[in-house]
Amino acid sequence: MHDHPWVCMVMHMVQVAVAGASGYAGAEVCRLLLGHPDVTVGALTAGSSAGSALGEHAPHLLPLADRVLGPTDAETLAGADVVVLALPHGASGPLAAELGDGVLVVDAAADHRLVDPAAWEAFYGSDHAGTWPYALPELLLAGGGRQRDALVGARRLAVPGCYPTACVLALAPGMAAGVCEPEDVVVVAASGTSGAGRAAKVGMLGAEVMGSMSPYGVGGVHRHTPEVEQGLSQAAGRPVTVSFTPTLAPMPRGILATATAHAAPGATASAVRAAWEDAYADEPFVHLLPPGRWPRTKDVAGSNAVHLQVALDERVGRVVAVAAVDNLVKGTAGAAVQGMNLALGLPESTGLPLVGLAP
Amino acid sequence: MHDHPWVCMVMHMVQVAVAGASGYAGAEVCRLLLGHPDVTVGALTAGSSAGSALGEHAPHLLPLADRVLGPTDAETLAGADVVVLALPHGASGPLAAELGDGVLVVDAAADHRLVDPAAWEAFYGSDHAGTWPYALPELLLAGGGRQRDALVGARRLAVPGCYPTACVLALAPGMAAGVCEPEDVVVVAASGTSGAGRAAKVGMLGAEVMGSMSPYGVGGVHRHTPEVEQGLSQAAGRPVTVSFTPTLAPMPRGILATATAHAAPGATASAVRAAWEDAYADEPFVHLLPPGRWPRTKDVAGSNAVHLQVALDERVGRVVAVAAVDNLVKGTAGAAVQGMNLALGLPESTGLPLVGLAP
Amino acid sequence: MHDHPWVCMVMHMVQVAVAGASGYAGAEVCRLLLGHPDVTVGALTAGSSAGSALGEHAPHLLPLADRVLGPTDAETLAGADVVVLALPHGASGPLAAELGDGVLVVDAAADHRLVDPAAWEAFYGSDHAGTWPYALPELLLAGGGRQRDALVGARRLAVPGCYPTACVLALAPGMAAGVCEPEDVVVVAASGTSGAGRAAKVGMLGAEVMGSMSPYGVGGVHRHTPEVEQGLSQAAGRPVTVSFTPTLAPMPRGILATATAHAAPGATASAVRAAWEDAYADEPFVHLLPPGRWPRTKDVAGSNAVHLQVALDERVGRVVAVAAVDNLVKGTAGAAVQGMNLALGLPESTGLPLVGLAP
Amino acid sequence: MHDHPWVCMVMHMVQVAVAGASGYAGAEVCRLLLGHPDVTVGALTAGSSAGSALGEHAPHLLPLADRVLGPTDAETLAGADVVVLALPHGASGPLAAELGDGVLVVDAAADHRLVDPAAWEAFYGSDHAGTWPYALPELLLAGGGRQRDALVGARRLAVPGCYPTACVLALAPGMAAGVCEPEDVVVVAASGTSGAGRAAKVGMLGAEVMGSMSPYGVGGVHRHTPEVEQGLSQAAGRPVTVSFTPTLAPMPRGILATATAHAAPGATASAVRAAWEDAYADEPFVHLLPPGRWPRTKDVAGSNAVHLQVALDERVGRVVAVAAVDNLVKGTAGAAVQGMNLALGLPESTGLPLVGLAP
Repeated sequence: MHDHPWVCMVMHMVQVAVAGASGYAGAEVCRLLLGHPDVTVGALTAGSSAGSALGEHAPHLLPLADRVLGPTDAETLAGADVVVLALPHGASGPLAAELGDGVLVVDAAADHRLVDPAAWEAFYGSDHAGTWPYALPELLLAGGGRQRDALVGARRLAVPGCYPTACVLALAPGMAAGVCEPEDVVVVAASGTSGAGRAAKVGMLGAEVMGSMSPYGVGGVHRHTPEVEQGLSQAAGRPVTVSFTPTLAPMPRGILATATAHAAPGATASAVRAAWEDAYADEPFVHLLPPGRWPRTKDVAGSNAVHLQVALDERVGRVVAVAAVDNLVKGTAGAAVQGMNLALGLPESTGLPLVGLAP
Repeated sequence: MHDHPWVCMVMHMVQVAVAGASGYAGAEVCRLLLGHPDVTVGALTAGSSAGSALGEHAPHLLPLADRVLGPTDAETLAGADVVVLALPHGASGPLAAELGDGVLVVDAAADHRLVDPAAWEAFYGSDHAGTWPYALPELLLAGGGRQRDALVGARRLAVPGCYPTACVLALAPGMAAGVCEPEDVVVVAASGTSGAGRAAKVGMLGAEVMGSMSPYGVGGVHRHTPEVEQGLSQAAGRPVTVSFTPTLAPMPRGILATATAHAAPGATASAVRAAWEDAYADEPFVHLLPPGRWPRTKDVAGSNAVHLQVALDERVGRVVAVAAVDNLVKGTAGAAVQGMNLALGLPESTGLPLVGLAP
Repeated sequence: MHDHPWVCMVMHMVQVAVAGASGYAGAEVCRLLLGHPDVTVGALTAGSSAGSALGEHAPHLLPLADRVLGPTDAETLAGADVVVLALPHGASGPLAAELGDGVLVVDAAADHRLVDPAAWEAFYGSDHAGTWPYALPELLLAGGGRQRDALVGARRLAVPGCYPTACVLALAPGMAAGVCEPEDVVVVAASGTSGAGRAAKVGMLGAEVMGSMSPYGVGGVHRHTPEVEQGLSQAAGRPVTVSFTPTLAPMPRGILATATAHAAPGATASAVRAAWEDAYADEPFVHLLPPGRWPRTKDVAGSNAVHLQVALDERVGRVVAVAAVDNLVKGTAGAAVQGMNLALGLPESTGLPLVGLAP
Repeated sequence: MHDHPWVCMVMHMVQVAVAGASGYAGAEVCRLLLGHPDVTVGALTAGSSAGSALGEHAPHLLPLADRVLGPTDAETLAGADVVVLALPHGASGPLAAELGDGVLVVDAAADHRLVDPAAWEAFYGSDHAGTWPYALPELLLAGGGRQRDALVGARRLAVPGCYPTACVLALAPGMAAGVCEPEDVVVVAASGTSGAGRAAKVGMLGAEVMGSMSPYGVGGVHRHTPEVEQGLSQAAGRPVTVSFTPTLAPMPRGILATATAHAAPGATASAVRAAWEDAYADEPFVHLLPPGRWPRTKDVAGSNAVHLQVALDERVGRVVAVAAVDNLVKGTAGAAVQGMNLALGLPESTGLPLVGLAP
C-alpha cells in the first residue's frame, strides 16, 4: 500500500477524463467507462471537434450525448484521477508532462510502447519518447511471470496496438513454452475498418470497403511490426522475427490474426495444446476454444475477450495460432481500462465485458 | 405488495430458464441475463440441439459455453422463477399450462399478443390461444396511462414483435396526441437478417443477403401487420389502418421503421415535436433525437434503446417518424427482460444496456 | 434521317468523352463505354484529380488505367462526338454552351431535369438552367406514347436521378392505367452508399455505414422529390403528390424503392397486374417478376435492368410496387448510355448489360 | 487443324450445356456464357432443383429465367458440344465417360486436378479418378512454357480450385525465376462466402458471416493444399511445401491470397519485381499493379482478371505476393470458359470480362 498510494483511490469513485473522445478509440473508452462501476466520466476533449456535443459524433453514447467537448489541453484535463489519451502519435509525451505525476496517464497511441529506440526511429521516423509500462497483462515473460506485474501501481501506461495484441497473445504461449521457434514467424491479420480511425478518407468510404479485402503496409513496413516482435521476443527470451501483413476486411470491428511459427523439434500436437492451455487457464479474458472450434471476430465484438485456437501442421512443421479480438476493445479501449484497473488496484476485470455481441 | 407476491422475489436472486436458447432470440436473452445483477441463469433448453453445449451455437456467451442444452419440456424448465420461451409459434400455450401459475412465463412468440381472435386467425390460420399482457411498457394508451401498468405483477407476458415495437413506438405519440390521423398509415421497415431466425435457408445465406435489399410479405400479408394496427389503435383510441411493407437489409441486426401518417388538420411542426417530446421525456429507453439528427440502427446495436426522430412534411400533409431498434434487444430479448423486471417488481431498467455498440 | 443527322454517326465509331471520370458516376460511364461496341473512349477529365491516372481512382477499369485525367474544360473535351458530364450540379449549363450544338451532351447532374422552374428553385435554391429531354425512355406518358420519343436525335439529355428512376418506373404503370390515385403517394427507398458520391465524409466511412440503416432528407426536403412527382404526374396526366423518404443501406450499390399509392375505386388485383404487364411487356430493361417473387438489388448489380413487382393490399386499399435498380447503372451511367444510343440512332440496348452480378 | 478437329467448331455457334446450373458456380458459368459471342446455352440441369425454372434460383440471369432445369444425366446433356460440370466431387468421372470423347467436358470439381494419386487419397479419402489437363493457362512451367499448351485441343479439362488459382498465380513467378525458395511457403487467404456453395448451412447464414472473419480448415487439412503445392512445384521444378490457412470474409465474392516465400539468397527487390513483370507482361488477365498499389477483391468482382502485387521484405528475407481474384470467375467459371476457348481453338479471352464491378 505504501508503494502504491493509488490503491486508496478505490474507496471513492475515480474520475477519468478522455482526450480525443470523438474518435473511435476515445468514444470506445467512454462506452466502457459508462459501464464501469467505480468510475465517473470527467472531461472529454477533442481537436477540431472541440465545442460540439459528443452526441453529434457518437450518438450511441446516450448518457454522454449532451456533453460538450473541451479543447485537448492540460488545463481542461486537470482534476481527473486518470487521463486516457486517444490522440495521434506524438501528442502524449508533452501532455503527460504537463499533467504531472499525480495523474495516471493511459496512452492509447504508439509513442511509449517500444523499448528499443532504434526500432521506434526506424518505423516512426522521429525521436523516441521513452518507454512506459506496456499494458498487456497476459503477456508471458520468458523468465516466468507476466507483464501484469509491471502494471500494478503504475502512473503511466502504454496501451498496446491492436494488431500486436492479437498477434502476441496468439503465439506467446508457444514461444514461452519453447514449442515454437523464434525465427521466421509469419502473421497475416485482417482488421475491421474502424482500425483506420475516424478521419474522412476516400479509400475508407463504405462504397470502397464493403465487399472487398485488401492488404496494406506490406513487406515489413507496417508500424506494428516491431511491436509484435518485441512482445514475442519477451515471451521467447530470444529475438523473434516476424513477417507481418495486415489486411483490411469489410467489417466495422475486429481483428483476426493468423500467426504461424516453426514448431520446435519434437513438438507434438499435445505439447502444443498444453502450452496454450497452461498459458491462459487462469486468464479472465483470453479463452482457448475447445478443440475443433475456431475463433470468429463476431464472437468478441464489443467485448474484452480474446478467442484463440491453435493447431500443429505436421506436414510442414508449423504451428498455426489464430486469435480474434475486437480492435477497439481488447485492442484499445478495453486494454486501457484493464491497465487502469491494475494500476489503480481495482480488480482487473472491473467494468469490462466478457461476452460479445453476436450475431 | 399483497396483490403482487412476486415482488418479494427480489430479495434473493431470480432464477430464469430459457427455452430455445440456441436460437438468436434465446441466445440474446441469455446474453442479457448474464448482465442482470439479480438473476441466475437456470435451465437452458433446445429442440434438435438438445444435448449439445451452448458454446457450439453461441460461442460469444463464454460464461455459459459449457452449459448442456436440455430438452424443451416442463420437467426440465421446472424450478425456475421465470421461464422465457423463445420458441416457434404454437408452443407456448401448452407449455405455460404445464408450468403452472407459480412461474412467470415470458413468451417471445406471437401466440398471445393479439387481442382480437379474428385478426389472429386471419393472419396465423389457427385458433387463437388467448391474450397475455403485452410487454411494451412505453405504449401510450388513449385514455391516458401506459401499457406499463398492465405488466406490474403479471405472471404471463407476451413480448411484442420486433417490427411492431419499432412501428408502434414511432407513431404512437402522434396518435395519442391527436396530431396524426388514424387512417392510412404507411410503414416501410428494414430489418437485419437475424430477424429471420437461425434456421438454415438458402435465401438467408450470407452470399444472398450481403449487398442486397429486398422486400417480403408485401401487400398487407406480413403477420406483424395486425399487431402494428393493434398498438397504434390503442394509442389513438380509434381503429388505425396500416400499409406495412417489411424489407430485408444486409446487416445482422437492427430495424429501421419509417412510419408516416396524415397530419391532423391544423397540426404544426411544433405541435408534432411536442407530442413526441412529451411522450418520451421520462422514458428510460426511448430517446427522441435532437432536431436535425436521424436514427441509425448501428447506434442501438446491442442496446435496449429506441432512437427516434419525427418531421412534418407540410407539402403533403404527412408526419414522418423514424425509429431504430435492435430487433434482438428492444425488439425481443430486451423487451422480455424489461417486462420481467416490471412483473417482478424490479426497477424496470435493471440489467438492460442503454448504450449501443458503434461503430 | 434528315431530321436526325446524328444517325449517320453510327457508321463509324463514336468518340465519347467523360467529364468527372474519377467519381463513381463517371467511372461507371467509363465501365459501360468499354463494353459498348460502337464507342471509343475519348478524353477523360476530373477536377482536383486532374493530372493523375484513372487507375489510381478506378483500378477496376484496367484498359483505361494508364489514362491521365485532363482538366474539365471545353478545350479538353472538344473533338468528342458525345460528352457525358458527371459533375456537381451547376456545371453543365455553361460547359454545354461552350461545347456547342454539334456535340451530344449528356448531363448526369440534376440541372436540366425539372420542367417547372419553381420546383427547381424551391429545392435547389438557384436559378433554373432550363429543361433538357429527360432520359427515361420507358416512362409512360398520359396521352399515350413514351418519353423515348423525345430522345431520338436529341443533342442534349438530362439523365434522371437514381431515386426518381426507381420510383417513377415502379408506379407509372398504375398512374397511366388509372388503377392508382395520384394523391398521397408514399415512397420509402433504400440506396447503397455509392449514391452519396466519392467525396470523403465521416458519415460515409465504412465503419459508420456497415451494419446500419438510416434515413436522411426526411420530411419532403430531398431534392429528388419534385422529380419523382414530375415523372409520375406525366404518367398520370394529373398532379401527383409524393411523400418521399430516402434511407441509406449498408451496401455499395443498388436502390430498392417501395412505392405505394391508393388504389382507384374498383381496381382489382388482376387489373393492377395487367397494368404493369402491359406497361413493360416490350421493354428490354424493365422486368416485371413472376407473381410471388420480389426484387433484390443484388440481381441488378452492374446491370441496366429494373426488377419490379406489384401487389394490391385490399385491406387498406393501396397498391404497393417495389423496384430494384443499380443506382450507378440504370440510375445513372446506364441511363446515360441508353439515352445516348437513342439520340444517336443506335439500337437502344447496345452495350448495356441486362444480367446482374449475383451472388 | 487436323490434330484439333474441335477448331472447326468455331465456324458455327458452340452449344454449351451446364450441369449444376442452380448452384453458384453453375449459375456463374451461365452468366459468362450469356456474354460469349460464339456460344448458345444448351441444356441446364440440377439435382434436387430439377424441374424448376432457373429464375427461381438465379433471378439475375434474366434471359434464362424461364429455362426449366433438367435432371443431371447423360441423356439430358447429350447433344451439346461442351458440357460444363458444376457438381459435387465424385460425379464428373462417370458422367464424362457416358458423354463420350466427342464432347468437351469441363469439370469444375476437384476430381481430376491432382496428378499425384497419393495426394488425392490423403486429402479426399477416395480413389483417384485420374488427371485431366489443368485449366490454368498462365501457369509457368519450370522447364519453360506454360500450362496453356496442354489445353489447346483438349477434350477434358479440370478447372483449378479457387484458392489454388490465386495462390499459384501469386507466387509462381518467383518460383519459376528462382528468386523464391520452394520450402516453407506460407499462405493465408480470405474468401467470400459464395466459396462455400449454395447449400443452406447455419454457419453460412448472413447473420453469422456479416461483420465477422474466421478461419477454417486450419493446420494443413484444407483440400486445396496439395493443389497449391502441385502448381507451385510445377513452376519451381522442385517440391514446394505450403502452410495454407483459408479464412472466411464477410463478402459475397472474392479471394485475397497473401503468399510469402523465403527470398533466394541474393534476390533483390528489382529482381523480384522483374520476375513478376516478365511472367505476366503478355497475359491478358493477370495484371501486376504499379508499384505501391495493392489489390482489392472489389476491383476484380465479376471479372476474369487477377490483380497482383509483390514486395520483398528485406528485414526478414521473405517475398510477399498478394493476389485478388473473383472466386466465381477466374476462380471457377471464368477459368472454365477460358479453358473451353483454348480447347476449342477460340481466342482465349473471348467472352470473358476484364473489368470488375466497383465500387
